[in-house]
Amino acid sequence: MTAVNDVSASSESTESSDSAGTSDSSGSSASSKTYLPSAVRPELRVPMRQIALTNGDSVVLYDTSGPYTDPEVRTDVRFGLPALRAPWIAERGDTAEYDGRTWQPTDDGLKSADLRNLDAVFSGGRKPVRGTEERGAVTQLAYARRGLVTAEMEYIAVREGVTAEFVRDEVARGRAVIPANVNHPEAEPMIIGRHFLTKVNANIGNSSVASSIEEEVDKMVWATRWGAATVMDLSTGRNIHTTREWILRNSPVPIGTVPIYQALEKVNGKAEDLTWEVFRDTVIEQCEQGVDYMTIHAGVLLRYVPLTANRKTGIVSRGGSIMAAWCLAHHEENFLYTNFRELTQILARYDVTYSLGDGLRPGSIYDANDAAQFAELTTLGELSKIARELGVQVMIEGPGHVPMHKIKENVELQMELCDEAPFYTLGPLTTDIAPGYDHITSAIGAAMIGWYGTAMLCYVTPKEHLGLPNRDDVKQGLIAYKIAAHASDLAKGHEGAQRWDDALSDARFEFRWEDQFNLALDPDTARAYHDETLPAAPAKTAHFCSMCGPHFCSMQISRNIAEQYGDQMAATDDGEIKAGMDAKSAEFLASGAQVYLPLAD
Amino acid sequence: MTAVNDVSASSESTESSDSAGTSDSSGSSASSKTYLPSAVRPELRVPMRQIALTNGDSVVLYDTSGPYTDPEVRTDVRFGLPALRAPWIAERGDTAEYDGRTWQPTDDGLKSADLRNLDAVFSGGRKPVRGTEERGAVTQLAYARRGLVTAEMEYIAVREGVTAEFVRDEVARGRAVIPANVNHPEAEPMIIGRHFLTKVNANIGNSSVASSIEEEVDKMVWATRWGAATVMDLSTGRNIHTTREWILRNSPVPIGTVPIYQALEKVNGKAEDLTWEVFRDTVIEQCEQGVDYMTIHAGVLLRYVPLTANRKTGIVSRGGSIMAAWCLAHHEENFLYTNFRELTQILARYDVTYSLGDGLRPGSIYDANDAAQFAELTTLGELSKIARELGVQVMIEGPGHVPMHKIKENVELQMELCDEAPFYTLGPLTTDIAPGYDHITSAIGAAMIGWYGTAMLCYVTPKEHLGLPNRDDVKQGLIAYKIAAHASDLAKGHEGAQRWDDALSDARFEFRWEDQFNLALDPDTARAYHDETLPAAPAKTAHFCSMCGPHFCSMQISRNIAEQYGDQMAATDDGEIKAGMDAKSAEFLASGAQVYLPLAD
Repeated sequence: MTAVNDVSASSESTESSDSAGTSDSSGSSASSKTYLPSAVRPELRVPMRQIALTNGDSVVLYDTSGPYTDPEVRTDVRFGLPALRAPWIAERGDTAEYDGRTWQPTDDGLKSADLRNLDAVFSGGRKPVRGTEERGAVTQLAYARRGLVTAEMEYIAVREGVTAEFVRDEVARGRAVIPANVNHPEAEPMIIGRHFLTKVNANIGNSSVASSIEEEVDKMVWATRWGAATVMDLSTGRNIHTTREWILRNSPVPIGTVPIYQALEKVNGKAEDLTWEVFRDTVIEQCEQGVDYMTIHAGVLLRYVPLTANRKTGIVSRGGSIMAAWCLAHHEENFLYTNFRELTQILARYDVTYSLGDGLRPGSIYDANDAAQFAELTTLGELSKIARELGVQVMIEGPGHVPMHKIKENVELQMELCDEAPFYTLGPLTTDIAPGYDHITSAIGAAMIGWYGTAMLCYVTPKEHLGLPNRDDVKQGLIAYKIAAHASDLAKGHEGAQRWDDALSDARFEFRWEDQFNLALDPDTARAYHDETLPAAPAKTAHFCSMCGPHFCSMQISRNIAEQYGDQMAATDDGEIKAGMDAKSAEFLASGAQVYLPLAD
Repeated sequence: MTAVNDVSASSESTESSDSAGTSDSSGSSASSKTYLPSAVRPELRVPMRQIALTNGDSVVLYDTSGPYTDPEVRTDVRFGLPALRAPWIAERGDTAEYDGRTWQPTDDGLKSADLRNLDAVFSGGRKPVRGTEERGAVTQLAYARRGLVTAEMEYIAVREGVTAEFVRDEVARGRAVIPANVNHPEAEPMIIGRHFLTKVNANIGNSSVASSIEEEVDKMVWATRWGAATVMDLSTGRNIHTTREWILRNSPVPIGTVPIYQALEKVNGKAEDLTWEVFRDTVIEQCEQGVDYMTIHAGVLLRYVPLTANRKTGIVSRGGSIMAAWCLAHHEENFLYTNFRELTQILARYDVTYSLGDGLRPGSIYDANDAAQFAELTTLGELSKIARELGVQVMIEGPGHVPMHKIKENVELQMELCDEAPFYTLGPLTTDIAPGYDHITSAIGAAMIGWYGTAMLCYVTPKEHLGLPNRDDVKQGLIAYKIAAHASDLAKGHEGAQRWDDALSDARFEFRWEDQFNLALDPDTARAYHDETLPAAPAKTAHFCSMCGPHFCSMQISRNIAEQYGDQMAATDDGEIKAGMDAKSAEFLASGAQVYLPLAD
């Protein structure tokens, strides 16, 4: 596990292979980790990123990057992150340790235990915990309904700048979820709901063609560095169990999975050999490891499959196609649907959040908003009611590929059918003609669907439809989606989001270039682009850039106008303006009336 | 002018310096120039790009790249492009050659004629033409109103796949414009209107800090290669006149300018020294050269300037800030406004289209949709009526920086106040926090505003706010904006746009990788991304890619389902399905029931 150790040994190691050539923004002295206190729970330290400005102000931003970007914290991937939430879970007194399920060779896709590379096994594991039988669901939903403000809720309240009671209420109503498996105490609590900051998820995961365990852990850390609020581990090759353990023990953000992928591996890829028992065992395996939310394709019903027959691109959800194949092979109803109550009772004991998968989502513009897609959504609505009835948090996954004019209908229907459960959408891509740029085709749809009410956006990288994303693809996907999420927040009127924009606009108008760079989503790229044509230090305070040059900087002209005509610019009466202008005009002309700085050459 | 000759000598030369490492898509044998005929005017040859698919079909796409991508045509930048429209202009018999204005040193920012580099002067120039006094406006608008279907309209009808009468009617109503100066006969006719394909404009132009004539001509050719339907030359340094001549004589697309930039150079950058006479002379200079549309900031009225006083970012339009400075220095009304009728009468004689500039557009999210912006829009509405009254085509420029929820209001107001004159918007950027990625922040806004009704989108490159774009920035900006424009067209229900998406979706579902690449907006990047992990030739027909690998390709599983269950997938009755499935289930199981291809390793 040398490579994994390398990742942990120093957060700087993640920079060396950045193909974009940028260095970590946390390396800038202007950006630093800060912790906000909680008045209610003094022991809480809620991590934020603070940007110090050259004018003495500072801006505090949401931070997903965990202890890795705190120079005061020594992280070591071999031991995992501190179990931040362990005392909170323990103090609630409704869970207990137990001897978990025994590891099996098939968990890692191996034929026998002899083949296991023991050096690769994470050695700092704890015994799993789960809710004790008599206490029912140990979920944030159950607590919220009972009126309990948990430490997680308090932490989130500070993180989001709202009251803890608001957090509790949104969770109790099912309009927000806090993915927080009791076996993933390392994660920093976060919330997904449309009345909070719009979140971004990054998918990582090997495919059998490329990638390795080390790369996956590294990608997780890298993704959180660029703003991933949750990470889905979609690995499908060998060593799934072992890879996941490393990721969970080192992840400061909730981890999601699609358990059917691993279940399929256990039956050697034969969909018809899947059984409820194999699936249930896989879910328990993942619950014990600490997976925070699981995509479950329980809405792919037998009778819906023929509705996809006339599509351009059939079924494009991997889980959806697996379940459709199973249903047809057995001519039976989807076992995830028929066993949904039992599955829900399992998740309730670990506080695993449902992410009800849209297995019949459209895979092309042509297929958007069709009968198959909306039939499944109706079923997801039914299932979300059962989940909540049993105390399990639930969010709903959404498309996919949707032209702009059909996006809003998706959100409206989802809210209505699923009683406002948080919507978690992939994109959507607004056109299919730009493979290689689907982070952009989908950022357009993501921004819009976020504005309409989606709570979390699953990112898309430039490699979508073409290959497995590398480091820079992950970064490019995240930047595009952070833009989409933030644009959504602005459009929804989020005050904190507006403050960030305002701070950057002020810096721009006042030619505080360093502040513009430091406030940027990607400070290194902003700085590098500026310096490409104006690398000299004086340019960092110059009242122009190379885009327009010193003669034509409208901002400078505009500033000169304000300086010259400050008093009558403030006047609102036309007569007043006229009078003031006669005087000011003479003054301006006398001063040389230059509307821009003299050109040096 | 060696470098310029290099550009012309071979279109391949533009590839060598492509920092993205992609080669020209026209180099692919699958993509070729084709010409559509016109039944009405047999002499017309309307250029399109034809993509040959491996299944024998082909897709024909709009093509902006001009003769440069036709291997049958020999272009030479020293002589310019053929004067395609000259016979059409002549046959109308309402224009005449005349001895144009004499070149003056100040046209090129020189102190005396001795300083002119005669080697740099374009030598193949024609005498200018203009409308004869007695015939009135020689504009496409005037012709359309008289019921005349011009050759330009017929050409556009073929290019857009609509009837010529529809083109004429939209132009007559002022809902579309055909920028086509009688002195730019080299340009291939195109139309800007919301009932046609959404167009993209690329800005080029040196600033005094960087760039050269050669680079500007090269950028123009490069921009049209990636889909720029018009190009604005925003040069502001020395040699403006000479640079523009080279660009116009070699441009297959309409060229726009902002004449106030050059006028300001002529008065040594002192805004208060600007006069109507200097400006009028500059406009005539540019009319004679062949500029097709001009940005005129005639809506920046004296009384509106104080409305910008409480903004975060003041006046961010260069032209707007210049005119505001002039108004304040003279405490007089904007001379572009007070002389608007005379200006219009000049443009009418050359068929120059107005692009009424939004000098008070917002430069930050905070300033969007404010009183200054909408006051100016009201005035642009008044001016557009005068323009049309005098037979001059007009479009209206729009913002800028606008959060998503305020975009629609811009379009609705513009349509109402300007009587549906085509809207031509810059972005808008939907957030300011991502310098370095403003092609993405603004592609989101551009796609939406295009859907709402904007006819042409002015691109934004990744260097916006930071520096002058290089070749790859121009390409990245154009790709992002072609995505936005196409997503708009899809959302507006454009049938041709949908066919392009459908062709790509079909290719994707049928694993025709080469067709996917060739149909992509940027075939080279799509191919390169795919080949990064799967370079071998067999992968080009494989039923998977490295993103999911062979085990988990949902499309392949979906295809297998369709093959196995084709007949009852088509059935709609549940009973029927059930019956068919019993038989099919046995068959599927007998065949091994593999839902994916066997893994090679």
